[in-house]
Amino acid sequence: MGGDHAPGAILDGVRRSLEAGDLDAGQVALAGPIDQIEPRLAEHGLDRQAIDLHDAPDVLGGSCESPIDAMRKKPRNSIAVGVAKLKTGEADAFLSAGNTGIVVATAKVALQCLEGIRRPAIAVTINVESGPFIIIDAGANPQPKPLHLMQFALMGSAYHRDAFGTAKPRVGLVNIGSESGKGSSLAKEAGQLLRDAPINFVGNVEGVEMYRGACDVVVCDGFTGNVLLKASEGVAEYMLKTAARVMREHEIGPQKMSAILGLMQKNVDYSEYGGAPLLGVEGSVTICHGRSEGPAIANAIRFATKAVGAKLNQHIVSAAREAAISP
Amino acid sequence: MGGDHAPGAILDGVRRSLEAGDLDAGQVALAGPIDQIEPRLAEHGLDRQAIDLHDAPDVLGGSCESPIDAMRKKPRNSIAVGVAKLKTGEADAFLSAGNTGIVVATAKVALQCLEGIRRPAIAVTINVESGPFIIIDAGANPQPKPLHLMQFALMGSAYHRDAFGTAKPRVGLVNIGSESGKGSSLAKEAGQLLRDAPINFVGNVEGVEMYRGACDVVVCDGFTGNVLLKASEGVAEYMLKTAARVMREHEIGPQKMSAILGLMQKNVDYSEYGGAPLLGVEGSVTICHGRSEGPAIANAIRFATKAVGAKLNQHIVSAAREAAISP
Repeated sequence: MGGDHAPGAILDGVRRSLEAGDLDAGQVALAGPIDQIEPRLAEHGLDRQAIDLHDAPDVLGGSCESPIDAMRKKPRNSIAVGVAKLKTGEADAFLSAGNTGIVVATAKVALQCLEGIRRPAIAVTINVESGPFIIIDAGANPQPKPLHLMQFALMGSAYHRDAFGTAKPRVGLVNIGSESGKGSSLAKEAGQLLRDAPINFVGNVEGVEMYRGACDVVVCDGFTGNVLLKASEGVAEYMLKTAARVMREHEIGPQKMSAILGLMQKNVDYSEYGGAPLLGVEGSVTICHGRSEGPAIANAIRFATKAVGAKLNQHIVSAAREAAISP
Repeated sequence: MGGDHAPGAILDGVRRSLEAGDLDAGQVALAGPIDQIEPRLAEHGLDRQAIDLHDAPDVLGGSCESPIDAMRKKPRNSIAVGVAKLKTGEADAFLSAGNTGIVVATAKVALQCLEGIRRPAIAVTINVESGPFIIIDAGANPQPKPLHLMQFALMGSAYHRDAFGTAKPRVGLVNIGSESGKGSSLAKEAGQLLRDAPINFVGNVEGVEMYRGACDVVVCDGFTGNVLLKASEGVAEYMLKTAARVMREHEIGPQKMSAILGLMQKNVDYSEYGGAPLLGVEGSVTICHGRSEGPAIANAIRFATKAVGAKLNQHIVSAAREAAISP
C-alpha cells in the first residue's frame, strides 16, 4: 500500500518483472490488506495462485505519519509484515514505496546490522551523462559519526561495484571547498578515516564536480545527503519548467518540445534505477520513490534481485572486516 | 585582484556603476597592487583622479589558499586593506570577488559583530520565477548553534525587506521532512527558537518547495547551505548542457537554441544580484562570485549601496534587540 500510486503501481511493477523474467512465478510475496489487494490482481494480469499474499490490514497514513506512532499503533502495516519475512528468512529482498522514515525505522528495529557495520544507510543513484553515481547516506542518519561515514563509503563502494561493475569506485566526501582542512569537524575527521580506508578515496567533492561525474560514490551524513538530493530535484524540476516556458516563447512546436523535455527529464530521472537500497542490514531492503509508477517498481525489483544474486551483503561484510584490520 | 577575471572585471564593474549613477566620482576606492591597477584604469574609462587607490601588493593565490596562511603571510592583500577601510570608517561598503573563506575570516577578525549578533552569515540570493529568495548561511559557519540559526533568520528577514521590499518575509528552516519533530538536533532546536522569534516563520522547507517559491528566507547551517547551493549550481549546469545536447539532436537552429539556453541560464544566474552580503558585521561586506564579470560586479555594487542607504545594519540591530526581549 506504499506510495502515491499503490497498489496499482506495485502490481504493475510485479507484472513487468515477471514478464521480463527478472522474477519467476512463485517468487513474489505481497503484503497489504488482502481484501483490497486480492480483487485487483486480475486487472494487472497477475495469477492469484502464483502470488504469496500476506495480510497487512493496518494502512499507514503517508508521509506525515511518524515512525514511532506507525510502529506502535499500526503494527500490522505492510512494511512491518514485509520486513518480518526478511527476518525469518522467508524472503531475500523487500521493497516498499511507502514512507522512507518508517521503512528505515522498521528495518533498524527488526533486522540485525551486517557484521561489522554500525549503521545502515540509504544509497540513492543519480544518473549523469558520464554514468551513475550514488549518494550515501540519503537520509537514514541525520547525525552520524566519522566512523559511520567511513562505513558508508565501504558499503557504497561495494554497491557500485556489484550494481554497475565498477572495479574501483571513486569515493568523494561532500565538503565545503576542496582542501582537506575545511568544513565541519565531522567532515574533517571523516576525511582522515577515508584516506586510510581500503577504498579509492579521491578527496572532497562539491556540487558542480559531482554532476560532472567526478566520483562514483558520494559520502555524506544523512541530513546533508537528503538536502542535497531534494535541492537537486527542486532545481531539476524548476529547470524543466523554465525550459518549457522558454521554448513556448520561442515557438518550438508541442511535439518537438515534449520530446526535448522528455529526454531532459530522463537524464535526471531516478526511476531508471527505481529504488534506493538501505545498505547494512541483514537481507535486502529497497526504498522506492513515493511517486514510482510500475516501470520504476520493476527496475527496483531488478536491481534488488541483482544485488542479492551478486551477494552484495557478503561483499560489504568482507569490506568491513578488511577496514577493521587495516592499519 | 580577487576573482577569475580581476582586475578587468572589477574595473569594468566600477565603470558601469559610475555610468549608471549608482556611484559618484570620488566615491570609489580600490585596493590592489598599484603598479598593476593604475596602468589599466584608462582602458576601462576610469579617471585616475576620481579613484582612491590603496596599495595592496600581496596578491593571494586563489581558492586553495588557507585563510590563516593568507592573513599571516600576506597581510597586505587587497581583502585586508579593503576591510581595514571599513574598520576606520573611511569606507561604508567593501566588495570582493576573491576567496570567500579569506573574506569571511578577515572580516570576522577585523570587524566587530553588530550589537546583539553572535556570528556573521552569508546570504545568497537565488531568483526563481516567483521572485528572489535567499539562503542564509551559505558557508560562513559550518557548525553553528541553534541560537545562531535564529539570528540568521532575523538578519535574512531584514535583508529581504530592505533589498526587495518584502513586508513580512516568509522564513523556512531547511530540514528533512516537513514535520517539526524530524531532522538533526540542530534543526529541531532551531525550529523551536524560530517559532518563538519575531519573524514570519513558515516551518520546515525542502528543496522542491524552495524552488517553487515557498519562502523568502531559507535558514540553515553554513555547511548545509554551501552544499545546497553548490548542488543547485551543479544541477543547473548539468541541465543546461543536457538541454543543449537534446536540442541539437532535435535540430533546433543554433540561433534559437542559444536564445533558449540564454533565458534558461538567466533564470538560475546569481549575477543578477551580483554578490552575497556577509550580514552581521559593522559595515557592509559583499562577496562576489569568483567568476563574476563586470555586470555582476556592478549589480553587487548597486545592492551594497542600496543596503547602506536603507540602513540595513540598524534594522538588524533592532531585530536582534526585539528578539532578545521577546518572551
